[in-house]
Amino acid sequence: MNPISYGGFLDVVRTKAPLVHSITNYVTVNDCANALLACGASPIMSDEPAEVGDITSICGGLTLNIGTLHKASIEAMFVAGKRSAELGHPLILDPVGAGASTLRTEVAGQLLDELPITVVRANMSEAKALVSGAARTRGVDVCPDDIVTTENLSASVAFARDFARKIDAIVAITGAIDIVADANHAFAVRNGTSLQGKITGAGCMLSCLCSAFVVANPHASFEATLAAVVFMGVAGQVAAARMGEFDGNGMFRAYLLDALYLMDGRTLEAEALVEECA
Amino acid sequence: MNPISYGGFLDVVRTKAPLVHSITNYVTVNDCANALLACGASPIMSDEPAEVGDITSICGGLTLNIGTLHKASIEAMFVAGKRSAELGHPLILDPVGAGASTLRTEVAGQLLDELPITVVRANMSEAKALVSGAARTRGVDVCPDDIVTTENLSASVAFARDFARKIDAIVAITGAIDIVADANHAFAVRNGTSLQGKITGAGCMLSCLCSAFVVANPHASFEATLAAVVFMGVAGQVAAARMGEFDGNGMFRAYLLDALYLMDGRTLEAEALVEECA
Amino acid sequence: MNPISYGGFLDVVRTKAPLVHSITNYVTVNDCANALLACGASPIMSDEPAEVGDITSICGGLTLNIGTLHKASIEAMFVAGKRSAELGHPLILDPVGAGASTLRTEVAGQLLDELPITVVRANMSEAKALVSGAARTRGVDVCPDDIVTTENLSASVAFARDFARKIDAIVAITGAIDIVADANHAFAVRNGTSLQGKITGAGCMLSCLCSAFVVANPHASFEATLAAVVFMGVAGQVAAARMGEFDGNGMFRAYLLDALYLMDGRTLEAEALVEECA
Repeated sequence: MNPISYGGFLDVVRTKAPLVHSITNYVTVNDCANALLACGASPIMSDEPAEVGDITSICGGLTLNIGTLHKASIEAMFVAGKRSAELGHPLILDPVGAGASTLRTEVAGQLLDELPITVVRANMSEAKALVSGAARTRGVDVCPDDIVTTENLSASVAFARDFARKIDAIVAITGAIDIVADANHAFAVRNGTSLQGKITGAGCMLSCLCSAFVVANPHASFEATLAAVVFMGVAGQVAAARMGEFDGNGMFRAYLLDALYLMDGRTLEAEALVEECA
Repeated sequence: MNPISYGGFLDVVRTKAPLVHSITNYVTVNDCANALLACGASPIMSDEPAEVGDITSICGGLTLNIGTLHKASIEAMFVAGKRSAELGHPLILDPVGAGASTLRTEVAGQLLDELPITVVRANMSEAKALVSGAARTRGVDVCPDDIVTTENLSASVAFARDFARKIDAIVAITGAIDIVADANHAFAVRNGTSLQGKITGAGCMLSCLCSAFVVANPHASFEATLAAVVFMGVAGQVAAARMGEFDGNGMFRAYLLDALYLMDGRTLEAEALVEECA
Repeated sequence: MNPISYGGFLDVVRTKAPLVHSITNYVTVNDCANALLACGASPIMSDEPAEVGDITSICGGLTLNIGTLHKASIEAMFVAGKRSAELGHPLILDPVGAGASTLRTEVAGQLLDELPITVVRANMSEAKALVSGAARTRGVDVCPDDIVTTENLSASVAFARDFARKIDAIVAITGAIDIVADANHAFAVRNGTSLQGKITGAGCMLSCLCSAFVVANPHASFEATLAAVVFMGVAGQVAAARMGEFDGNGMFRAYLLDALYLMDGRTLEAEALVEECA
């Protein structure tokens, strides 16, 4: 694999301004829309089965986020997903809280089975729930036992690669250390800040950014996913560096969007902490 | 038409504190509620058919925003709209993404046909989709070809006036240059900032502000709509002027609400850039 | 009752990091999630009847907020509430807009009748609507006649205590002066700022904080509820003290979360303005 120009991928997103359809949860949907705007993409949200076929047809790609499933939105995910697949659009799955309920685990599994998912962006607990089918997550946050550390990195990378091979997709497992893997490659990303876990929606926003990056860079989905993960991580660091004495998660949320909005390719390149895993 | 006191209309909103019912999308609903509070109005949101008749009855007016339609919310729009019409309340329609799906175009058309809509607040692509019935929008954002410029202003004004005559409503087509028209008058507003297009919800918030202004000023709906458009534009400029080196769309969103919240009538009057179009 | 260590209750929340399930409205849900994170709890939102039993089972408690009811979410409230009750979890009810529609008044009444609600957090108009069954609220905000003042405090406390006795629950009626009462005790809290009424969601956030405090302090539900009310009030004051010349409700919203996030037990203790009512 050639050296990856993270900044180059971002520049392409900003130039192409891809239109991205997201069927996502109502908790973080506003942040998802603003994150897409911050990276130069254009968001549209719709989860009504009667229109998602139309909506996804005018877009370049589709995000499926199961953070607050409804009967109708589940139907919409399959309708939009199938149409999106017919059109050859990238499909990004965020299995929020997989393992927290049978419904979430099953719906995420069915989406993986029935749709040609391009990228799964999840935390490690959600990824393990998808592999095992077992309910073991602590809500929407990673279980303490599942946190990726330097000590368990090589086992975690092996898991990610197996998972990617099994589902024939790119896997981005993000957390303290992020792993981006497919059947053949794996990279660890050490960007980011623990503050991202103190707001709701950092993962959801990243999944939407993955969509924007992959839509804009269709012939390099793996590298584009990796670039999106680095982008969010570096933005987290920029936002964290801006935190003042009286700032908490309220201001961090705004600073994170600001950092995504203002990020230039050179900063992204300079700050990327990426290593290829053997 | 007499000279319009934009500040006077705002003052009346702040004095009367009108209660506004909004059936709106779940992407920007929080910003809509905070924008209504910022202008001195009181928001209530409900899209459940079983209660919208009650809710709209205690309010002074109704906003219908089709940004994320559901089967039940469509039903709620007609139930609430008919009750609102019986009560003589103003009805403000925001046809978000009309043209992006058959459902949106049709629902917006039916709302216009079946309800006595007072004001349509839209971007130019949405307005054109409502006139032609054709799907041609780029999602929820204006198509580049449809942007109102100095060059096409007079054609755009003619379109707005024809549209207003056809639907017998006030039309506020907002964007780089805003046009407020009815069958007899048309004004162009050159307030605002391009940053408003870099957050989600600036249009949705403006539609809710139109509701508040028209509810509080029932005998001058046209002038009140124009005042609301100027109000949002000047607030955008105030917020843009506050942007620091590290501020992006995250902080702009907060600054915009702040500018709405703190705006006084004198500033509004002084900064209004409005011209009547022949 | 022993002296209450408000800071101590907060510290327990931060240490235990309770997982809280909220079935809440789509207007303020993002703020609710971030407020829970700010106090050290972990939020999960779900209102799909097919999964709420699972979701609530992995949590420590449940918030029921009727701010935007849907047919399915009403069903979900009863499914989750019954499961939660079987598990002995605390149940916190926020009857947003009770009195504004027959549906809201009836659903809130049925939730009180059929579920062992631990805490009702409401404004005075909503509380009166629940007692009288009559529709009399001004939307989601308190009616001017119902504002708790020094003059009517003792009558308001008597009302709160009667209401608490009638429903066999803790009652937190919040506003200009907050009242926390059960059948045997009543406290008035004079913390807070009028700015909390200028953003949407301050009440909803407080209801979620009550859940977190009661879940983490299961053997002292009354004191934990009181501590949560003081916590929100002091945070409001900290946020208000930070307001600059150009800050409005946009920045206040972020400052309020920041204040919750950074609050330490000592500040909470020092700033609490609580009096026991005879």
